[in-house]
Amino acid sequence: MTEKYVYNFNEGKKEMKELLGGKGANLAEMTKIALPVPSGFTLTTESCNRFFVEDQVIWTGLEMEINDHLKELEQSTGKKFSDMENPLLLSVRSGAAHSMPGMMDTVLNLGLNDHSVIGLAKATSNERFAYDSYRRFIQMFSDVVMEIPKIHFESILEEAKRKQGVALDKELDGNDLKEIVKKYKEVYLQETGEDFPQEPMVQLILAIKAVFASWNNPRAVFYREMHGISKLNGTAVNVQAMVFGNKGESSGTGVAFTRNPGNGEKKLFGEFLLNAQGEDVVAGVRTPNELAELKDLMPKVYQQLEIAAKNLESHYKDMQDIEFTIENGELFLLQTRNGKRTAHAAITIAVDLHEEGKITKEEALLRIDPQQLNQLLHPNFDEKAAAQATVLAKGLAASPGAASGRIYFTAEAVEAAYEKGIKSILVRQETSPEDISGMVKSEGILTARGGMTSHAAVVARGMGKCCIAGCTEMKVNEEEKIVKYKGGVLSEGDVISLDGTTGTVYLGEIEKSKPTLGGKFTKLMEWIDETKTMAVRANADTPEDAKQALEFYAEGIGLIRTEHMFFKEGRISSFRRMILAETVEERAKALNEILPMQKNDFYQIYEVMGELPVTIRLLDPPLHEFMPVKEEEIRQLAETMSLSLEELNGRINELHEVNPMLGHRGVRLGITYPEISRMQVRAIMEAALEHKSDKNSDIQPEIMIPLISDVKELSYIKAEIEDEIQKVFIEKGKSLAYHIGTMIEVPRAALTADKIAEEADFFSFGTNDLTQMGFGFSRDDSGGFISEYMNKNIFENGPFDTIDQEGIGQLVEMAVERGRITKPNFKIGICGEHGGDPASIEFFQRLGINYVSCSPFRVPIARLAAAQAAINDR
Amino acid sequence: MTEKYVYNFNEGKKEMKELLGGKGANLAEMTKIALPVPSGFTLTTESCNRFFVEDQVIWTGLEMEINDHLKELEQSTGKKFSDMENPLLLSVRSGAAHSMPGMMDTVLNLGLNDHSVIGLAKATSNERFAYDSYRRFIQMFSDVVMEIPKIHFESILEEAKRKQGVALDKELDGNDLKEIVKKYKEVYLQETGEDFPQEPMVQLILAIKAVFASWNNPRAVFYREMHGISKLNGTAVNVQAMVFGNKGESSGTGVAFTRNPGNGEKKLFGEFLLNAQGEDVVAGVRTPNELAELKDLMPKVYQQLEIAAKNLESHYKDMQDIEFTIENGELFLLQTRNGKRTAHAAITIAVDLHEEGKITKEEALLRIDPQQLNQLLHPNFDEKAAAQATVLAKGLAASPGAASGRIYFTAEAVEAAYEKGIKSILVRQETSPEDISGMVKSEGILTARGGMTSHAAVVARGMGKCCIAGCTEMKVNEEEKIVKYKGGVLSEGDVISLDGTTGTVYLGEIEKSKPTLGGKFTKLMEWIDETKTMAVRANADTPEDAKQALEFYAEGIGLIRTEHMFFKEGRISSFRRMILAETVEERAKALNEILPMQKNDFYQIYEVMGELPVTIRLLDPPLHEFMPVKEEEIRQLAETMSLSLEELNGRINELHEVNPMLGHRGVRLGITYPEISRMQVRAIMEAALEHKSDKNSDIQPEIMIPLISDVKELSYIKAEIEDEIQKVFIEKGKSLAYHIGTMIEVPRAALTADKIAEEADFFSFGTNDLTQMGFGFSRDDSGGFISEYMNKNIFENGPFDTIDQEGIGQLVEMAVERGRITKPNFKIGICGEHGGDPASIEFFQRLGINYVSCSPFRVPIARLAAAQAAINDR
Repeated sequence: MTEKYVYNFNEGKKEMKELLGGKGANLAEMTKIALPVPSGFTLTTESCNRFFVEDQVIWTGLEMEINDHLKELEQSTGKKFSDMENPLLLSVRSGAAHSMPGMMDTVLNLGLNDHSVIGLAKATSNERFAYDSYRRFIQMFSDVVMEIPKIHFESILEEAKRKQGVALDKELDGNDLKEIVKKYKEVYLQETGEDFPQEPMVQLILAIKAVFASWNNPRAVFYREMHGISKLNGTAVNVQAMVFGNKGESSGTGVAFTRNPGNGEKKLFGEFLLNAQGEDVVAGVRTPNELAELKDLMPKVYQQLEIAAKNLESHYKDMQDIEFTIENGELFLLQTRNGKRTAHAAITIAVDLHEEGKITKEEALLRIDPQQLNQLLHPNFDEKAAAQATVLAKGLAASPGAASGRIYFTAEAVEAAYEKGIKSILVRQETSPEDISGMVKSEGILTARGGMTSHAAVVARGMGKCCIAGCTEMKVNEEEKIVKYKGGVLSEGDVISLDGTTGTVYLGEIEKSKPTLGGKFTKLMEWIDETKTMAVRANADTPEDAKQALEFYAEGIGLIRTEHMFFKEGRISSFRRMILAETVEERAKALNEILPMQKNDFYQIYEVMGELPVTIRLLDPPLHEFMPVKEEEIRQLAETMSLSLEELNGRINELHEVNPMLGHRGVRLGITYPEISRMQVRAIMEAALEHKSDKNSDIQPEIMIPLISDVKELSYIKAEIEDEIQKVFIEKGKSLAYHIGTMIEVPRAALTADKIAEEADFFSFGTNDLTQMGFGFSRDDSGGFISEYMNKNIFENGPFDTIDQEGIGQLVEMAVERGRITKPNFKIGICGEHGGDPASIEFFQRLGINYVSCSPFRVPIARLAAAQAAINDR
Repeated sequence: MTEKYVYNFNEGKKEMKELLGGKGANLAEMTKIALPVPSGFTLTTESCNRFFVEDQVIWTGLEMEINDHLKELEQSTGKKFSDMENPLLLSVRSGAAHSMPGMMDTVLNLGLNDHSVIGLAKATSNERFAYDSYRRFIQMFSDVVMEIPKIHFESILEEAKRKQGVALDKELDGNDLKEIVKKYKEVYLQETGEDFPQEPMVQLILAIKAVFASWNNPRAVFYREMHGISKLNGTAVNVQAMVFGNKGESSGTGVAFTRNPGNGEKKLFGEFLLNAQGEDVVAGVRTPNELAELKDLMPKVYQQLEIAAKNLESHYKDMQDIEFTIENGELFLLQTRNGKRTAHAAITIAVDLHEEGKITKEEALLRIDPQQLNQLLHPNFDEKAAAQATVLAKGLAASPGAASGRIYFTAEAVEAAYEKGIKSILVRQETSPEDISGMVKSEGILTARGGMTSHAAVVARGMGKCCIAGCTEMKVNEEEKIVKYKGGVLSEGDVISLDGTTGTVYLGEIEKSKPTLGGKFTKLMEWIDETKTMAVRANADTPEDAKQALEFYAEGIGLIRTEHMFFKEGRISSFRRMILAETVEERAKALNEILPMQKNDFYQIYEVMGELPVTIRLLDPPLHEFMPVKEEEIRQLAETMSLSLEELNGRINELHEVNPMLGHRGVRLGITYPEISRMQVRAIMEAALEHKSDKNSDIQPEIMIPLISDVKELSYIKAEIEDEIQKVFIEKGKSLAYHIGTMIEVPRAALTADKIAEEADFFSFGTNDLTQMGFGFSRDDSGGFISEYMNKNIFENGPFDTIDQEGIGQLVEMAVERGRITKPNFKIGICGEHGGDPASIEFFQRLGINYVSCSPFRVPIARLAAAQAAINDR
């Protein structure tokens, strides 16, 4: 194989993403289908890889290939790269196989120097254009290639505008810009100790090296880690002949989506700026115009754009995000890619594309990122509460959702707040890739500048995070850490609320209400049911949770944590007295108080769920967790129990454990205090018997024993509770079917699952505890060092977020296999938080798990993930 | 198969222990080799099992078999069971396959009643004998069969002696005893509401049922649990024609050991009582005579006994414990079994038996219970200190060793003290099986009555626990909880010391010194070295530990816990400042203070160990453990660090973790603070380089990384410490070989051992943590519920005492297999506490572990266990 590192756009195609990067492959594809794409070539991802192997040097062979392709480009454009009269100018862009917002390193207008800028001014009879292009080039080159802080250049530009009394940079004239160029070059000299490079070929090589190097900048590395991307070679580099949107009012630049990325409507959607170049729209430097306005301004261009859009969508079978430039009324396409979209739009587009006959149902299902559904499922502001709240400002509804939090002005401050458990809103003039880690950890994002396709808006939508962009009414001062709005000032730490669906910014926190899900969501859910093979249940502790779960199409309850019921007002006191009882009689008395309440809890949940399966876990946490902490509460309890404060404190202290996670909890409580388990089981069965006779239902409660490590624990507790069940049956004179199963959450339980299965009717994996014990990581304490592990590349994913297939997964697999050796059709579920994680669900599908159970709000996500897993598993 | 539940003594043999019980099989064997054994028959262990199946009823078939054998017995003895003139009297004894001190239920003289006692008096012309036999029968029957408290009978006997002004019961005459019988029967009537049964067959059936029932009495159940005995059917019942040691001064009863059970000397050893019956010697009611005295009193009987002893020892190839009775100058053997012995005696006897050509070297090694070596290894009193201490009394040196503790008078009080961590001495008039659980939990046992073969002495020797018996100088009043001795009174809670080797009781606590091990011990150690295949190292943190370990034949150090070094005076302050440092500089400064101290620690240990392998584990525990707790210390530290008390408390609180066992410890510390690991490794290597050049040694330090869960953790920390090692080599201009290995103590490490082995030079299992995490049992918190598990038969053994082969063992096995798939000759050790547990060592041998490491005092035990494991594994 000859080593070929550079491809002309007409040599590639869309399937070559791994080699040419997403941008390069799509430029090649657009070239192939004869869309108006400026010529150019792509340095492959393999060349990036070799660049690092060669100690970050452009080796001779690559330089020769670049030269050859440059010559071709000169031929096809009829311009010369180093020409002083009418120079060929280039754009240099990165483009990895996966879109990576951490890596926005683009250089435009490359090739200009002090001489050719004069030639360009003459050739175009447009001095303003020429110097605007040159100052942009210097600015971008300095930023991207030389890493000179942007603020130096921005302040010069702002100063010039102030001096000229204009608001927009396009209002500056050629002379202003000439002056700016001079000042920019001074900055360059000052910062680098060298003159701005005048030799175009030197400029090009430096730019290419900068793009390559950006592959390993910390932002890009962080992004790849966050997304678990590890197998790529590097970034490709796209070198393309420039077309100019900054040649005057018949030129411009913009972004077009083939469908609305906010709601999925089948209609061209986008923004543009006249007399602007490249990044102006995306970076949100000016607030752009809606694309619809272009129809009136340049009807022919708009029509061309519409045709190209239809063409590209048919070709890619997905909604496209297109960058275009208009040079003197002529349309050029600079990039196309699958467009980012909100969850709402994703569902609408996927359903529509299938109904338009463009994609199969399976393809439609695979098109939607399950994680993104979060957007649809999280509550919106309560309408009444929002109506009464103080509106601070209105901005662009950049990413839907509702968020409240304290405001912070830097990503670092947001991260610090996050560590302390404080919910925050990131407030910025505009965001940039440096802010990504802070965006991840904020509740929502508010920017003063930038449009619907600004960095903040695009990234927030991808994350499913609430965002208001271009909120020009708010004057953000990042240095003084204040925001001025009409009528007041906010300081760091003040609480605001964002409605990302309407773009409204409110003062203070606002109550949230539940989302309503539309018709296409229902259709999607139907398709999911036709496709998936694994059931999705919800973890629900209350009738309200259960209702929510049903609304989200849960197929049962996989986990009721009965302990949550004890925290309710009015019963915690009985429960505490039960725990602290020193005699069996005292304990029995307190348990008798609790019994009717527990029974009522269960009855209500049965009422909601009908005959759907309901799994009830017996008391799990260490008893110390139920003890009062505040002195006042302790005093009250002491009074109720006729104990001195000292005595009570003594008993509470006795419950304290060094490692409560590995202490007296779960089935261990049932074995030492069988009367607690008996009370719970009595409540479960009495409620079920009543439900059965009230509703004539075939209810079959599933009783689940937590923290089993040995089959003998299960046999012991089973004997106790079956004895109680028999008593209930005899007392009531009726009976029903029930199932007694066990959590598999202790490593030893997984190892001895064959034996445990002999006594169990079902298994349910508690993957949280299994991960805690399997890794020896306390969830409460490991946050600090696990994030250190992520920083140091020791972990790619947090093991509590996505199940660790390599280690903990072995335990799960082992337990499934061994359980089914004992009982071939054994029912096995998951009720740890991994049950709502798509990557984990994919794994569980492969193991043949029967159901996952997760929080109600994650049920639709898990359902979609289960459908995708079923498709991928075929 | 015909159902046969009863065997005549002449139908059995010693190999039938499972069926006939130990006692029954040995009676049969002695009958077979024509020793003078009174005739009788054995109800099998299977009959006991069926007894429980039949709801504790003697079924007709069994009753018929008993009748048949009774008839045979009548024929062979020429007496009739229900005869009124010269009745056949029986002894009824339990006898399980394993000796079980919890089950001492024997009835003698069964068959007597108000009529036949008169006949017996006439037939023997010995009224005293007849009524003594009858009162004994009533007393034993009431106690064993009817569970009437012994105190009723004992007080009547004492009262009678007081009234007659005699000290010993044998001084009471026939009339006294007749009166006693009358009173005994009144007690019986009062306590049971029925007359004492007069029908011999009824007596027999009741007695048999009582023996059967005793199989499941709580004491026996406790004993079986404690010893992990679970597979037995039940106890056998031995019914034997009585011979009488209480027929006068030419009669007697005694116990003989074929060799000295205290020191192993090859000489008949034992005790006897004239005019006494059965249990009198064992129960320690009277202080018996030394057996040597029998030689003068009855030379012929003594010679017969010597011959029988030699005969039995040759036959059983082990030291025998023989019960005998002399009836009117005629010797009868009532029982033989392998004798319990001290560790010292066990070694002497095993070595001697091999050197006498009676057993092989392997048999000799298998003869010694490794656990028992404990006796030899624990310190004795410092001679000087003991010489200066106040001697309270002298008793029999019943079980060697040295113990100090507070005195308590009941097993319950000892157990209660134990729970509070108080060391105690159990002080009793005499012990009985009810006291076993208290004996287990005491430091030592002191009894006022009883000889070398009394209950207390036998049981204590078996446990390897210090015991002084028959200390008649001390008047124990159990009710008032005081001990009177010559010159004073002790009350509950006073501290005394026992020297079990000399029989001396001291006031107060006495300093202990190390034991010295004799010549036969050395020989045993040599044989062990020839036999075992697994190395035994010691866990040692100081040069002193290392020296102790070498004295006990350790073959290296398997674990240095470097954190223990930080607790030393003078360095804990530096270490705390290091932990609390907020800047890298502060931390570096503190580490620099610690470095020379750590280096010196390692140098000193290398000096002791020479070229033997030394494995050093890097810092393991959570940092919070090093923080001061006392206010005064905190204040001092705050001063040293120029911090306010508030600031310091704040920093200390930050280190607090909810579950420190699963928190920021082990390699996680090394990853977040690599400078700590670097300092430690520098100390290890600098010390090693100095040792190498000072001693011209080929020292090869083994550096061990704790708490690895993923190979990437190991790669990361290895890169750090190898970098530091290279720096040391460059600085010093020399180098040496070293090994970097890892603990396998996290379940996930076991599961991914193949990957971890790629980066590791060796594995060492931390089975404590592996058990904690595998079971989810915190060692600190699980004591309470694990003992509940033992009580409820859920666990047979504590998983921290003996490794759980079924579950945790799988992880160990898996890690060994997978590690050796990666590296076939991979060195693997154990350094958890299971490394010193014989049952666990047997398991590790089967897995092909290369070495175990345990505390220095367990090294000889582990060595012997390793030798036995190697033999059993052949």
